[in-house]
Amino acid sequence: MSVNSPDNHEVLQPVRWSDGAVLLLDQRLLPEEIVYLTLTTPQDVWDAIRELKVRGAPAIGIAAAYGVVLGVQQFRGTPDELAKETIRHAAHLATSRPTAVNLFWALDRMKGRAKTLAEAGLDTETCIAALLDEARQIHAEDEETNRLIGEHALTLFQDGMGVLTHCNAGGLATSKYGTALAPFYLALEKGVQLKVYADETRPVLQGARLTAFELHKAGVDVTLITDNMAGHVMSKGWVQAVIVGTDRVAANGDVANKIGTYSVAVLAKAHNIPFYVACPLSTIDLSTPTGADIPIEERHPDEVTIGFGRRTAPEGVAVYNPAFDVTPNELVTAIITEKGIVRAPYAENLKKLFETS
Amino acid sequence: MSVNSPDNHEVLQPVRWSDGAVLLLDQRLLPEEIVYLTLTTPQDVWDAIRELKVRGAPAIGIAAAYGVVLGVQQFRGTPDELAKETIRHAAHLATSRPTAVNLFWALDRMKGRAKTLAEAGLDTETCIAALLDEARQIHAEDEETNRLIGEHALTLFQDGMGVLTHCNAGGLATSKYGTALAPFYLALEKGVQLKVYADETRPVLQGARLTAFELHKAGVDVTLITDNMAGHVMSKGWVQAVIVGTDRVAANGDVANKIGTYSVAVLAKAHNIPFYVACPLSTIDLSTPTGADIPIEERHPDEVTIGFGRRTAPEGVAVYNPAFDVTPNELVTAIITEKGIVRAPYAENLKKLFETS
Repeated sequence: MSVNSPDNHEVLQPVRWSDGAVLLLDQRLLPEEIVYLTLTTPQDVWDAIRELKVRGAPAIGIAAAYGVVLGVQQFRGTPDELAKETIRHAAHLATSRPTAVNLFWALDRMKGRAKTLAEAGLDTETCIAALLDEARQIHAEDEETNRLIGEHALTLFQDGMGVLTHCNAGGLATSKYGTALAPFYLALEKGVQLKVYADETRPVLQGARLTAFELHKAGVDVTLITDNMAGHVMSKGWVQAVIVGTDRVAANGDVANKIGTYSVAVLAKAHNIPFYVACPLSTIDLSTPTGADIPIEERHPDEVTIGFGRRTAPEGVAVYNPAFDVTPNELVTAIITEKGIVRAPYAENLKKLFETS
Repeated sequence: MSVNSPDNHEVLQPVRWSDGAVLLLDQRLLPEEIVYLTLTTPQDVWDAIRELKVRGAPAIGIAAAYGVVLGVQQFRGTPDELAKETIRHAAHLATSRPTAVNLFWALDRMKGRAKTLAEAGLDTETCIAALLDEARQIHAEDEETNRLIGEHALTLFQDGMGVLTHCNAGGLATSKYGTALAPFYLALEKGVQLKVYADETRPVLQGARLTAFELHKAGVDVTLITDNMAGHVMSKGWVQAVIVGTDRVAANGDVANKIGTYSVAVLAKAHNIPFYVACPLSTIDLSTPTGADIPIEERHPDEVTIGFGRRTAPEGVAVYNPAFDVTPNELVTAIITEKGIVRAPYAENLKKLFETS
């Protein structure tokens, strides 16, 4: 299924549930082609997550939750057996990417719901419908969460500011609005002028292919730069804030995000520019003490050497290709969540966020 | 003319004079193809410089000097007219790239030689032969200069160190050895183990296509990273020094080099890693007071948006694509020249370098 709609940003929802299938925007084809894939099995979803067709922690969580439903929607055993089947699919889907905590969070929620349902004395069909409702709820909550994050973030920006972002924590990474990009969409709605600088984000170029794409399409004033221009652009005085998403925040406020985020944070500090991290509570993992406890996925050298259909480095050369890096909490000015803006000391203040929920 | 010789680094000389023509390695085709172009007119050389077929300040200077010879080698007027013709070709070649001071330096030297020859009472043929000798001399001096730079630089490195470099200031950028890469070649000759990290250097990927290529080919231990990994690699403690080349050093020690160099310098400082700049005296321009006086070339957005042979950013998006940035002298630990290692205060010590020559 292929949908081309060059004038309308809003149709570009990364994940949708439709008629018993997951419609998934193939983000690897952006910005050239807008193609929705029809996924009908959990393995389809596993592959899509693994191959980065869907990316961004919240969108991965939503896709995985629907993926579980795909696995059980035709199930005809007992509610107890359904719960076991749900857990089996969730366990498999959890192996698709090692770093994104939202993936585990969404799958745990589906597993928990299945267990509760099994104990409720309902028939299997009702349980399946309730599991679908749970996945849809995860989806709807994410949309509301993003809007709240955007509203909190926007209080930190003033009209006329330049804001730099890295990777894509945008609508394409979530259900709508995104996390780090949410304030830009809300600024557009409210008539606040912001000038966005988007790092292209090697090796997979999410900044060029996705962030520049979705913001440009929405009418946001966005300028694309290569990653190594960030320091230069800051030195020119064009950037008054940095905002990024994250794949996981540790209990002490250390932030794992796309490779290059750490460099941007160091550069921001050297230029006295605040460095903000936007994320839902589901991305904050109090069971991970520090950034050193976050596993850093290393990906295939080909992403660096022949990433764009053409070889750009010699055959056989050694390549180091970590997908993420960790920004230590002392470089993070604030973490912006749906429940408000959190500042240091993070170990204390992140914990409070959950205590009051 | 196409030469393929996968096992031998030394044949990859970027510029050679042969039988009244310039043989120029087309660096835009590396690392996939090793093709030498035969250039027979100054306009051929102008185009090659403009289109980055030859790049690196010293190699550009050598190519331009030979380019002048191409323009006058068939000249049959008087020695005075020859001098005018030489000046005319030099003036045109000087417009091919705005930043590289070696280009102007080499062309000024050719002009100066032509004027001296015109006053020497020689015949035109002898003058032309002397102009070719002058270009060859520029070439030979560069080779000797690079070896001396490499020897001085190597005194700053110890066995087992990790050294990061950005862009390509290698053999491919000069006549042989390169400037920033010279210590790696000399270390290899002397059995000193260094581990090199090469930034790929977007947008034109000189680090991936050229630095990784020439070092890997020579047997140097080189690991390719994307530019945004530099900070992460430094934070892991893998880098004990940074060394880069430069297109122009101002009188106060500010350094213009490939975009991204400034970010690397800031990151190095944040990690207490020395940041070295390697260059010949011809790259130091005492007539340029500070980095703010160096014109920064902006290049076409396509380098960023469709640089890999495939569109990686949306059509019509704004792009900022400066080719260079300026690293202020306070971030420069030392400047390594053929006459030795210069440290702050640069305004004073760079001047001394010329006074004692």
